[in-house]
Amino acid sequence: MNHETGPLGMSNSEVDLALFGALGDLALRKLYPALYQLDREGLLPETTRVLGLARQEYDTAAFQARVTEALKQRVKASELDKESLKRFLARLDYARVDFNQVEGYEAIRGWREGSPRPMIVYLAVPASIYGSICRNLQASGSLDGETRVVVEKPIGYDLESSQEINDAIGEVFPESRVYRIDHYLGKETVQNLIALRFANPLFGTQWNQNHISHVEITVAEQVGIEGRWGYFDQAGQLRDMVQNHLLQLVCLIAMDPPANLDADAIRDEKVKVLKALKPFGTESLGRDVVRGQYTAGTSGGQSVPGYLEEEGANTESHTETFVAMKTEVANWRWAGVPFYLRTGKRMPEKLSQIVIHFRQQPHYIFDPDQRSLAANKLIIRLQPEEGIALQVLTKDSGLDKGMRLRPGPLHLDFSSAFPKSRIPDAYERLLLEVMKGQQYLFVRRDEVEYAWRWCDQLIAAWEAHDSPPRRYPAGSWGPVASIAMITQDGRSWYEDY
Amino acid sequence: MNHETGPLGMSNSEVDLALFGALGDLALRKLYPALYQLDREGLLPETTRVLGLARQEYDTAAFQARVTEALKQRVKASELDKESLKRFLARLDYARVDFNQVEGYEAIRGWREGSPRPMIVYLAVPASIYGSICRNLQASGSLDGETRVVVEKPIGYDLESSQEINDAIGEVFPESRVYRIDHYLGKETVQNLIALRFANPLFGTQWNQNHISHVEITVAEQVGIEGRWGYFDQAGQLRDMVQNHLLQLVCLIAMDPPANLDADAIRDEKVKVLKALKPFGTESLGRDVVRGQYTAGTSGGQSVPGYLEEEGANTESHTETFVAMKTEVANWRWAGVPFYLRTGKRMPEKLSQIVIHFRQQPHYIFDPDQRSLAANKLIIRLQPEEGIALQVLTKDSGLDKGMRLRPGPLHLDFSSAFPKSRIPDAYERLLLEVMKGQQYLFVRRDEVEYAWRWCDQLIAAWEAHDSPPRRYPAGSWGPVASIAMITQDGRSWYEDY
Repeated sequence: MNHETGPLGMSNSEVDLALFGALGDLALRKLYPALYQLDREGLLPETTRVLGLARQEYDTAAFQARVTEALKQRVKASELDKESLKRFLARLDYARVDFNQVEGYEAIRGWREGSPRPMIVYLAVPASIYGSICRNLQASGSLDGETRVVVEKPIGYDLESSQEINDAIGEVFPESRVYRIDHYLGKETVQNLIALRFANPLFGTQWNQNHISHVEITVAEQVGIEGRWGYFDQAGQLRDMVQNHLLQLVCLIAMDPPANLDADAIRDEKVKVLKALKPFGTESLGRDVVRGQYTAGTSGGQSVPGYLEEEGANTESHTETFVAMKTEVANWRWAGVPFYLRTGKRMPEKLSQIVIHFRQQPHYIFDPDQRSLAANKLIIRLQPEEGIALQVLTKDSGLDKGMRLRPGPLHLDFSSAFPKSRIPDAYERLLLEVMKGQQYLFVRRDEVEYAWRWCDQLIAAWEAHDSPPRRYPAGSWGPVASIAMITQDGRSWYEDY
Repeated sequence: MNHETGPLGMSNSEVDLALFGALGDLALRKLYPALYQLDREGLLPETTRVLGLARQEYDTAAFQARVTEALKQRVKASELDKESLKRFLARLDYARVDFNQVEGYEAIRGWREGSPRPMIVYLAVPASIYGSICRNLQASGSLDGETRVVVEKPIGYDLESSQEINDAIGEVFPESRVYRIDHYLGKETVQNLIALRFANPLFGTQWNQNHISHVEITVAEQVGIEGRWGYFDQAGQLRDMVQNHLLQLVCLIAMDPPANLDADAIRDEKVKVLKALKPFGTESLGRDVVRGQYTAGTSGGQSVPGYLEEEGANTESHTETFVAMKTEVANWRWAGVPFYLRTGKRMPEKLSQIVIHFRQQPHYIFDPDQRSLAANKLIIRLQPEEGIALQVLTKDSGLDKGMRLRPGPLHLDFSSAFPKSRIPDAYERLLLEVMKGQQYLFVRRDEVEYAWRWCDQLIAAWEAHDSPPRRYPAGSWGPVASIAMITQDGRSWYEDY
């Protein structure tokens, strides 16, 4: 056994992995491909075994066949060699379990019989049954003092419901063994924020309101509702994307430097950011927040229906499919620095990026018409491809250009670090960290709850006003008001890369 | 006519160019290829004419043939097309002149007859005859109030001799029309220092002793004495390279930001740096300066003789072919920041580069064995190829690497700015600037003289001690003592790129 609490350790723990929801979408699309890739790269210890648990009447052979089919859809043929596949499938077992019936859980004990390895329980199921599973695991005697549990967002619908879920988990598992996944934290570029900020004095010493003028975060989805109108309409874009992904990005950008890389040192700093997020008041609500809902338009060259025309839609819905806001982290480091956030569905492209805009210098000596260029930007791209670029101004090197400036991105090359240019999926990294027992890439209970607290006050303010969202055509960058929100500050959403 | 005083203007002046030393090495190797390239790129106005002046009995046809031959040696065949060559040659005339006889100068008046264009007089001849040529130009009535004069280093041998030369030029030309070339100032990367420092707040705000720990400049030559032992032995590496090129680089790195880009605003700041250079005392002379002289060794895979065995050598010579020093710019911006300089002949490769080392942060949270990595470097490469790279630390993206750091250079891509990836030779830029009447890339009289003042005190101290230089084998990086000089400070000469 080899537990680490910080991110520096490189050793890998031997574990048994019990996977609830083994035939569900998340498992099939993300977890088996990630486990397979880890296995293929030699990062799964030989002893690691996976027990799939679901309600369906499958046997192990049928389960392995279903997993093979899923891998074929998700893993490149060139990476799916016979030998690796065979080795991976041999790790898999299946047991049929009605999650609500403690009796079925004996299968886990039988599977674990004699194993000296700690167990990871991965709950790839709706949050509403987390509590029931945790209680049955305990009641069936499947747990020991080392079992870790992995859960996925959404953790609740607001502060209160998230507390209920966290309480139910917490009755069985101490916080030190709970791994709440926000898969954005598994992305290479997001983790790179830690290295960029804390290992590079060039950035580290300027990471504050003296040197940064504003921060932009865009998480644009090209897709619409994808057949889950009823679910989404209860949530809306703020709950679906901002409460988790966008606020996690805000935390990593804005947090004060942790004294070390221990999971709690990092998460303490993240919580401080969430606590310092400025709530919206009546005035700022109208000025600094834009809700949108898409109407019919074009996506990827095809006509698509509006949100209220989707299958299953309630034509009166005021649920937002887009939200843009200008917020602030009210502390010594960030006072006065706007954080412009926007996220929406049916945008022109899939694009997630953070842009750190450094301040211009007060004095300027080059061509007056180039003045607006003279600032640096750090661009952290999460999707579609991951990458980091620093925008630097150099002399335009054309002979006839005199001292004209030229903005040029310095690109950080990720591909050279990976043979075959494969950037691992976020789930590979996250599964590896759970296996190592390292929590720094997972969301702590208080993070979830402070994030809800801040979203709840915004939602409450919206509900008090009950104004309909602004409309934007599918395939556009959102309501015009979201552009105006930033241009009235003399700025614009950054779109080049 | 279109005079500009700063570097922002893009317009090109029409001029006549009278070239003294038209059959000399500099003209053949550098000036005709540069003029040809400018012409080919459409940067020479149609009216521009060149009059070659030398002692040899040539006529214009023979002169054009000689220039063609020189171009064939220096310009890539693919860039030497018939039409461009023909157009260029048509600009050339030749006149035989004994530089010391005023009578011959009438040829210039004849050639200039009726020209409304200002004349540039380029003195590609030894400094010892600058005075004589200037006086004869004036006496022959060849000059008007717009004629500019271009001169080359070495301008003298010490402060006194440089003053004599500058006085002789100054009797005829006001400083505003004197263009002293240091071809390092014509290099793209060197000029880029101005853009990097003053258009990029990221660098500009950190360009001082709070953020920079030390600066390194290496100008390594692979060649030896190249048949000019007698000349070189009178000078030595300090006079040959440090007094001009290295101190010019120190000036551009260290100068305070000029209030604007006017030639004198920039040069005023450069002079301040030269005045603030710390002189060496008896103690620092022994500790912070290393003189070297190469012995027999290997260069480019071939055995080569030592300096004292070269043809024409005086076997008792104490002249240095290498010098390394640790100096300081004693002002508010740079106090306590060592500038490590080194330059030598018969080094393993031709390499000129500046490395700006940013300070480490006081607190460090990554793997202890990577602590020495955690600093940023800006690397400005002048030779063999030009380039700028910023060394940044990122997270090592291997899945099994946890939060290990990885140093990666962000490369500034110059080639994309030039069709066909051609980076212009320094002389192209410099000739263009003379034609535009822009002096900011040329060395002002007081710069030359303060640079000599500082070198003279060092030479005087050496002479007072008269210790022989340390020996180093040809093909090595200089005497061991030059390595020790920097390693005793816990640093090392940067060699990767």
